Amino acid sequence: MRNSRRGAVDPFIVMDVMEAARQAEEAGRHIIHMEVGQPSTPAPRGARATLTDAMKSDPMGYSVALGLPALRRRIARLYGEWYNVDLDPGRVIVTSGSSGAFLLAFTALFDAGERVGVGAPGYPSYRQILKALDVVPVDIETSAANRYQPVASDFDGLNLSGLMVASPANPSGTMLDHAAMGALIDACAAQDMAFISDEIYHGIEYEAKAVTALELTQDCYVINSFSKYFSMTGWRVGWMVVPEDHVRLIERLAQNMFICAPHAGQVTALAAMDCENELKSNLEVYRENRRLMLEGLPAAGFDRIAPPDGAFYVYADVSHLTDDSRAFAGEILEKAGVAVTPGLDFDPVRGHGTIRFSYARATDDIREGLARLKAFMDARD
Amino acid sequence: MRNSRRGAVDPFIVMDVMEAARQAEEAGRHIIHMEVGQPSTPAPRGARATLTDAMKSDPMGYSVALGLPALRRRIARLYGEWYNVDLDPGRVIVTSGSSGAFLLAFTALFDAGERVGVGAPGYPSYRQILKALDVVPVDIETSAANRYQPVASDFDGLNLSGLMVASPANPSGTMLDHAAMGALIDACAAQDMAFISDEIYHGIEYEAKAVTALELTQDCYVINSFSKYFSMTGWRVGWMVVPEDHVRLIERLAQNMFICAPHAGQVTALAAMDCENELKSNLEVYRENRRLMLEGLPAAGFDRIAPPDGAFYVYADVSHLTDDSRAFAGEILEKAGVAVTPGLDFDPVRGHGTIRFSYARATDDIREGLARLKAFMDARD
Repeated sequence: MRNSRRGAVDPFIVMDVMEAARQAEEAGRHIIHMEVGQPSTPAPRGARATLTDAMKSDPMGYSVALGLPALRRRIARLYGEWYNVDLDPGRVIVTSGSSGAFLLAFTALFDAGERVGVGAPGYPSYRQILKALDVVPVDIETSAANRYQPVASDFDGLNLSGLMVASPANPSGTMLDHAAMGALIDACAAQDMAFISDEIYHGIEYEAKAVTALELTQDCYVINSFSKYFSMTGWRVGWMVVPEDHVRLIERLAQNMFICAPHAGQVTALAAMDCENELKSNLEVYRENRRLMLEGLPAAGFDRIAPPDGAFYVYADVSHLTDDSRAFAGEILEKAGVAVTPGLDFDPVRGHGTIRFSYARATDDIREGLARLKAFMDARD
Repeated sequence: MRNSRRGAVDPFIVMDVMEAARQAEEAGRHIIHMEVGQPSTPAPRGARATLTDAMKSDPMGYSVALGLPALRRRIARLYGEWYNVDLDPGRVIVTSGSSGAFLLAFTALFDAGERVGVGAPGYPSYRQILKALDVVPVDIETSAANRYQPVASDFDGLNLSGLMVASPANPSGTMLDHAAMGALIDACAAQDMAFISDEIYHGIEYEAKAVTALELTQDCYVINSFSKYFSMTGWRVGWMVVPEDHVRLIERLAQNMFICAPHAGQVTALAAMDCENELKSNLEVYRENRRLMLEGLPAAGFDRIAPPDGAFYVYADVSHLTDDSRAFAGEILEKAGVAVTPGLDFDPVRGHGTIRFSYARATDDIREGLARLKAFMDARD
């Protein structure tokens, strides 16, 4: 059967790693998963209990397209609690995960053929979703000196219609502070570029607090999710904050493209926002994991890393160890029994010299994984 | 802030009706809802109980992009049970509702600027999703003589890259039999057009059994959903069957555009497939509602209707009563306290002379609604 050109997006290379890991486990080996980008914890206990109760009486049909009004109000309140930002709930749009938010944002903002800047390294799906929508993703090669975040001079003259940033970023975990984000916002405004801020790792931060673009401008799209801090990946509920004059535009698109975000997930998410104790204790696990990683990775020989401000990833330059990160990840899986992600998913050009370690899982796994990595590297010398 | 041309899709006119109905209710009036296109019943009891149990032990993170393997196998088995079709589970893709399936199918099949035929009257979101993807929807004006289904001669020479059909259709409830669907499939194959069959109302059929395109060809996309027969609208779980050589293409798109369908919804859907008694009793309600509608609507004066083979809608030609279905729907709401959908959502050209009645709600509501419609029409004479 016929198929489109734009539909031929790139595969995730990490999927090959995951499949190889699965096969190794099937063959009886014990594998430590440092490739997976999601918490191992479920939705908070109180949130699940709320859903169980709600299912007894609420038919949970379609919600309105923009999301349950109570959830939109609660999310707006979060901006007061987290950032001291006064946000109109009418600007909050509940989406089918951040994935749904990307589809809505890119469709609302860009026509076919337009060019949108994405940082490299960066979350691979930005690039592939843009491509699927016939928009042209333009890789912005960020530097280690800028901690893998774009700066205005990186995209000067690239003729872009928009810029996609993430703070904390995946795969690097680095953040944009007020000054850095403000400079990007100003540069975009000067070039009539849409500014889209991916903030899905907010709440998972270790030293400074993450900055939302809404502290600096209302003329932006902010995308967030219940997947990471709220530990609800599989529920597919996220949100987006858009300028007031874009709400109707997004509402019409959402009605047609999604009808609504999953109702059960919305009910669960609303309750999750009041499960602070459990979420804080998840965060303490990440914090301890991060401490172990920042100590154990250099000790093992992975010393070219930018300490992550947030999220649960460490991005390592391994170009002195290999020029084929895919083969190197295969070797680590084979010999150390640790699954890691080759950098090629995040940076098609320079990613053959980088790998990403995730520390989202249990602390015992992290400890064991680091010991295995050290033994592997010692044997390699 | 900037916005795209393609993002400016049409609003749903029915939303204005729903808002007016809501305001009327807020003002203390009692409204009968014949505008809503969803069951009032929740997910089956057994399915909800399964989810409650699963939440105790399963963290329900991301599923693999194509869906839970057990659910894909169970859906494949349904094709044996319902149609005696032997289907490879590897061709079944679990999606975020049929909405997610449309996004995946249109992206995989069509490039920007290509032309895709959609029947008018038809589900409005086909048109708007295509437009949002920069694909050109081409309305095919179907005739009452063909029971509002397209025939090959309707799109001859229109230079289309694909055809979207629905059986049972929304808003008409009419179906394509083997011969009619086969003729469309042949015409599409002859013109290298992709054939996409929307089968989301299968299972809700009253006289003959609905025909799946998979009885006639494997070279097609079939889209279905747990929303209607399985009574799970708000859960956002649907599925798609694609040709074997399109599975990898769709998998890559789904990984990037959706990551996965809601995990909790997938668990619930799998269990719903074994809740046959409850689903059958829902169906008996629709059957009785339909009987009342086919008797009551002509008695009230709405006699230009095609008896629906399936789904829970009656599409009525009211062009002898009004040339402004929107105003007419407003009048019915105002005077009769019955909310109905003006045809303009389904057919931008001829819809000013049609309205859609839904009979998805409780039988007592249908009875009361019909009595009100009769009184309204009697008073109007």
